[in-house]
Amino acid sequence: MPELRKDPIIGRWVIISTERGKRPSDFANLPKRKPSPLCPFCPGNESSTPPEILAFRPPLSEPNKPGWTLRVISNKYPALRIEGDLNREGKGIYDKMNGVGAHEVIIETANHIKDMQDYEDKEMEDVIWAYRHRISDLKKDPRFRYIMIFKNQGEEAGASLEHSHSQLIATPVVPKRVSEEVERSKTYFEYKERCIFCDIIRQEISENERVITQNDFFISIEPFAPRFPFETWILPKSHVSSFENTKKEAIPALAKILKETLLRLAKALNNPPYNYIIHTAPILNHEELEQYHWHIEIMPKLTRVAGFEWGTGFYINPTSPEDAAKYLKEIEI
Amino acid sequence: MPELRKDPIIGRWVIISTERGKRPSDFANLPKRKPSPLCPFCPGNESSTPPEILAFRPPLSEPNKPGWTLRVISNKYPALRIEGDLNREGKGIYDKMNGVGAHEVIIETANHIKDMQDYEDKEMEDVIWAYRHRISDLKKDPRFRYIMIFKNQGEEAGASLEHSHSQLIATPVVPKRVSEEVERSKTYFEYKERCIFCDIIRQEISENERVITQNDFFISIEPFAPRFPFETWILPKSHVSSFENTKKEAIPALAKILKETLLRLAKALNNPPYNYIIHTAPILNHEELEQYHWHIEIMPKLTRVAGFEWGTGFYINPTSPEDAAKYLKEIEI
Repeated sequence: MPELRKDPIIGRWVIISTERGKRPSDFANLPKRKPSPLCPFCPGNESSTPPEILAFRPPLSEPNKPGWTLRVISNKYPALRIEGDLNREGKGIYDKMNGVGAHEVIIETANHIKDMQDYEDKEMEDVIWAYRHRISDLKKDPRFRYIMIFKNQGEEAGASLEHSHSQLIATPVVPKRVSEEVERSKTYFEYKERCIFCDIIRQEISENERVITQNDFFISIEPFAPRFPFETWILPKSHVSSFENTKKEAIPALAKILKETLLRLAKALNNPPYNYIIHTAPILNHEELEQYHWHIEIMPKLTRVAGFEWGTGFYINPTSPEDAAKYLKEIEI
Repeated sequence: MPELRKDPIIGRWVIISTERGKRPSDFANLPKRKPSPLCPFCPGNESSTPPEILAFRPPLSEPNKPGWTLRVISNKYPALRIEGDLNREGKGIYDKMNGVGAHEVIIETANHIKDMQDYEDKEMEDVIWAYRHRISDLKKDPRFRYIMIFKNQGEEAGASLEHSHSQLIATPVVPKRVSEEVERSKTYFEYKERCIFCDIIRQEISENERVITQNDFFISIEPFAPRFPFETWILPKSHVSSFENTKKEAIPALAKILKETLLRLAKALNNPPYNYIIHTAPILNHEELEQYHWHIEIMPKLTRVAGFEWGTGFYINPTSPEDAAKYLKEIEI
């Protein structure tokens, strides 16, 4: 019998319909890559990107020249522009404003063919440090309400360049999905006086049916009402609403759990295309929120059942999160 | 300069960023189809589908045998099951219920290679009649809260069989996107004492920048804040909240505008894969709602920028609706 499940945070119902289920081996894999002399993200081609905003490179090495291990640049084709005022205006019932914002690219490695799950611990920690640096810097700009960090891995997941990278978009508005999470978790907090994410973590640890892995600071789970097969979330075990307020001593643990989770997904699903998104609190007077809890949502792109889901917010998922968790937990890495 | 625009109905902001824009000719097209002797939707293969629930066929012709011009059957691999009770239950903070519902397939034509935009007027009207029949019938089942009708055209849009068909899913819950539309349009109604959709139609007709075509009963527009390039909506000009309450005399006009809109999209975009979804009021004591207005949303599947959009509800659209409307309006059909 298929099952209808409700996401406790934003209230979305999904159908878990395993009779149409696929085994992990049915899912597609990514082609192997070769280094390309024309890749703008490869060392030696720094001049074909906008100048670096941040780079991890040896002392005394020259900016925008090889030697770096990680670079942050402006997106050459930005969806939003950093210059200008918002000029909010209405026309009849419609509202609009200028597309002011930041759109940056984090080139995570100098190695064209290295995937994130194969990074050394230090490389992964550096990616997290770079995210933190850039968020902390852009937060100072009073025009921005939200800073979104995400990664598209593989062409099917929307990556236009294959060299491993993430993106940052700072926006003058809060994305709808995030404001729903914040508002609905506030309703829960007012009713229960507890953070809903903290309650989820407690229940997941006690039931132990959907946990993939955990360490002192973080937990990786399949959510109870996932939209997609093998959708996976990573959450800090202690309450913290903003990603950039993660304690320094927790960063190695975050690097470890992100690497292990991606490695399990890669092994289980033949190196699938995926997206991940860091859900973090909006910028509101730089305050920590007692009802919200930052987390990473990883969505392997395995199925094409993207048809009407967009239009309705109604998802049919052929793989139960319990099956996915069992599979991911047992895979040898 | 990119522009941020807010959808007035559900409050979603989108980025219209035409600098990354593509011309319609850049978009992909569907391969031409050949009739297949194995297609379960073709005449002669009726025995390989579940028995028909409804069929348009000559008087005295036998059910589940050739002769029909349109057939409605249960989905052979249903996402929801028609038998059983809901058995709503909770486990800690989680809620679930049995996946009870209806999942039907409307085989719109006996002709394997005919696309919807090429239907005769009568064929298109029959499709609409079939939708209306099935909704009116399933509405009587007290377990259902919503009846969703949608079409996936082309493999890229999620169609698993190429023979032209639509689907119906009746669910015991209201899809999130629909309940948001209903709730937010209620807020507007309480404030203005007018239907927001009626206001949109008035403004669109008066501005005439995003209208593609119209007739006495319906209008076809590019919405002000579209998520996707060439996203197109068809709305009834007079207020009516439920699709199945469309007046009999308006059905030929609906068939005409749907055909013309799909034909313009097919010509402009090289026969693109697409999804359409009928947004109609939830089943609430069978009452018409004064704040809600049924409509069809057509989403050509042209771009792969589906990456993080799912996760954030934040869309970047490379084509402005004004450009798309101009292009669609001017194309020769």
